Amino acid sequence: MCKAYLLPIVLLTWVLLAVTLLASDCSINGFPLVRNISALPQSNYGREGLSHITLAGSLIHGMKEIEIWLQTFSPGSHTPIHRHSCEEVFVVLKGTGTLYLASDSHRKYPDNPKMYPVFANSTFIVPVNDAHQVWNTDDSEDLQMLVIVSRPPVKVFIYEDWSMPHTAARLKYPYYWDEQCFDSPVRDEL
Amino acid sequence: MCKAYLLPIVLLTWVLLAVTLLASDCSINGFPLVRNISALPQSNYGREGLSHITLAGSLIHGMKEIEIWLQTFSPGSHTPIHRHSCEEVFVVLKGTGTLYLASDSHRKYPDNPKMYPVFANSTFIVPVNDAHQVWNTDDSEDLQMLVIVSRPPVKVFIYEDWSMPHTAARLKYPYYWDEQCFDSPVRDEL
Repeated sequence: MCKAYLLPIVLLTWVLLAVTLLASDCSINGFPLVRNISALPQSNYGREGLSHITLAGSLIHGMKEIEIWLQTFSPGSHTPIHRHSCEEVFVVLKGTGTLYLASDSHRKYPDNPKMYPVFANSTFIVPVNDAHQVWNTDDSEDLQMLVIVSRPPVKVFIYEDWSMPHTAARLKYPYYWDEQCFDSPVRDEL
Repeated sequence: MCKAYLLPIVLLTWVLLAVTLLASDCSINGFPLVRNISALPQSNYGREGLSHITLAGSLIHGMKEIEIWLQTFSPGSHTPIHRHSCEEVFVVLKGTGTLYLASDSHRKYPDNPKMYPVFANSTFIVPVNDAHQVWNTDDSEDLQMLVIVSRPPVKVFIYEDWSMPHTAARLKYPYYWDEQCFDSPVRDEL
C-alpha cells in the first residue's frame, strides 16, 4: 500500500516544484540583491543569433523607470527595424556592428537610414521614436551590448522594411522577453 | 607696428578658443552620435581615487529620463554615504568591492547597513531612497562599474556617517560632475 501512494506523491512534488520555479521567474521578491550575471536566465526568445539577459527589468524585478539588458548578437544577426517612445542608450562591450538610424523627419516612412559603425568601448543614444536597427556586421565575432531603456516595459513598433509607413508599423507588446511575465503583472503598492 | 598688434591678437584667439571649448562641453549639439568612450572627458571631480565619465547625461547630452556613468574606483576609494529619490542600477565590469545598504526603515537615521560583496560580472539595484555606499575593498585592483540612474540630473543627499538623521543629510545639487554644465541648462524645446 505504501508503494501505491509513493508514485503520486513524488509526481505531485515535482509538479509543485515546477510551478514554484516558473512562478519565481516572474516574482519581484526573492531575488538576491547582488546577482551573478552568468547565473541569470538567458534566452534567444525565438530570435536567431540573439542572447538576451534582463539585468534589471520592470516585470521581473519591479523597475518602474529604467530597464537594462545584456544582449549578444552572433555574426550576421540583428534587431528588427523598430521604434519606441522612450530613451535608449547602448554601451558596446565587445565586437563591431552597424547602427542604421532614420531620423524622425516629416516623411510618412523612415526611408533610407544613415549608417554608423559601432565598436567595442563605444556608446550611442537612439533618439526617442526614431526608427533604427542594429546589426552585427562582423564575420566571426559576437557583438555584445548593454542596452538601457526608460519607461519600461518597452512598447516596440516593428517595420517590415525602411519604406513601410510609420502608421503601418506593427506594435509588438509585450516584447519577446516580457511575454512570460506579462500575465503576472507587478502590483503597484503605492 | 605689426609686432605690437600680434600679441593681443594671439591672446584673443586663445581666449576665444578656450571659451568655445568650455562651452562645447555643455552643449547637447555637436556630439558625434557614436562616441568612443576612451575619448570622452573623464575626471575625479575633486574626489580622490575616482574616475568618472558621463556616457549619456542630462545636462551634457539632453537626456531627460536616464543617465549613464562609467565609474572607476581605485583600491580603498568609495562613494559617500548617500541617498537619492531615483532608481539606480550598477553593473560591475571589473574588480571587487562592498555595497553597504541601509534599508529604508522607520528609523530616523540609516543605522548599521547590511554588507553585500560585489564582483565583476555582477549587477545590483539600489532601492529608491535607501542610504548606501560602495567601496573598492580590494588591495590592488580597480573597481569599475556602469551606473544607471533615472530622473537626472541626480539630487544627492549625503550623510556624514550611518547615525546621521535622514533630515540632516546634506543636499549636494548639482552633483560633482553636473556642476560645470549646471549654469547652462538644457532648454526644453517641447
